[in-house]
Amino acid sequence: MPKKVDHDARREELVLAAWRVIAARGIDEVTIREIARESGYSSGVLAHYFENKDDLLAHALRLSHTRIQKRYDAELGAPLPVDQLRGILLDNLPLDEQRELETRIEMSFWARALRNEALHEIQEQESETLRALLRELVVKAQADGAIAADHDVEEVLELLGAVIDGVSLHALLYPDRLPAEKQAKVMEFALRLLA
Amino acid sequence: MPKKVDHDARREELVLAAWRVIAARGIDEVTIREIARESGYSSGVLAHYFENKDDLLAHALRLSHTRIQKRYDAELGAPLPVDQLRGILLDNLPLDEQRELETRIEMSFWARALRNEALHEIQEQESETLRALLRELVVKAQADGAIAADHDVEEVLELLGAVIDGVSLHALLYPDRLPAEKQAKVMEFALRLLA
Repeated sequence: MPKKVDHDARREELVLAAWRVIAARGIDEVTIREIARESGYSSGVLAHYFENKDDLLAHALRLSHTRIQKRYDAELGAPLPVDQLRGILLDNLPLDEQRELETRIEMSFWARALRNEALHEIQEQESETLRALLRELVVKAQADGAIAADHDVEEVLELLGAVIDGVSLHALLYPDRLPAEKQAKVMEFALRLLA
Repeated sequence: MPKKVDHDARREELVLAAWRVIAARGIDEVTIREIARESGYSSGVLAHYFENKDDLLAHALRLSHTRIQKRYDAELGAPLPVDQLRGILLDNLPLDEQRELETRIEMSFWARALRNEALHEIQEQESETLRALLRELVVKAQADGAIAADHDVEEVLELLGAVIDGVSLHALLYPDRLPAEKQAKVMEFALRLLA
């Protein structure tokens, strides 16, 4: 009897290999052959799981976002909405190795998403999912008085979203200037300003 | 007598052709041949002006920053430091076609700067130049009372820097969500929070 393959597990394994290569070499220069080499499988096996490079990249971005969202459950266990909000905001910064890898993946996709509609759509969906969660928490924090009630919710969301991606970008580009505790301080500062 | 060539002007002409190709096709896929075609000159002429692709890219980034800095003179003519600050901050957002092109160039470089030391160094120098100018204006605005004096200057700078790049990124990725007037509103909101 042939060995039974767990296709979902293998797909994830291949996507993780893609992540590592993308983080190291940049998304545009990555080839299917290199990802195959990194994964230990053949290009033929990869072709069985992914239609083409863009399909593989789309899976890589989705897996990154799925992993981020799984961590949210812990953050959402905090009693106060503003602490839940803080938890989610900090979780989106490259504060440790795992999240730095995720941020590199994300950064690799930004420029490419401008020129690839399928990737752009995934990027936008995922961005809207995060914004919907943040919106809910901001509204609750405003009801609690932890964020001033007269701030426009959409402006608060744009500001916090910009701080997440701006700080993430600068932390990767200038790690000496923005070690983890400094990144967290900037986010805390933003929350204090909104209070 | 051979025609006299203005080498600086030609170098700029070639770099502008590089910009257009980078903005349209992304930095990693751009070839010297494509830039030559766009410029109307031969690859041989390009080779005369730039050692290699990275050298050309470094010039493209520098020209982008030089153009941005030239515009600062106008902003720095405002009477109040906080208005000068606002002018510089807004000038760094993709509010019109020229600045959208500059932002695309910038975005293209971010991921690449992580893996290319020469580009990273230019990126960091230019970032420090902007930060030095913003620092000066923030300190003056604090003395004037337009920014609260008890805010830590470095935290203010990190926040404003994050808002510039975060809003720029989101404006390019999600132009329907962040048209020019919305981008400006987010920046005004940040300044109001700091008051």
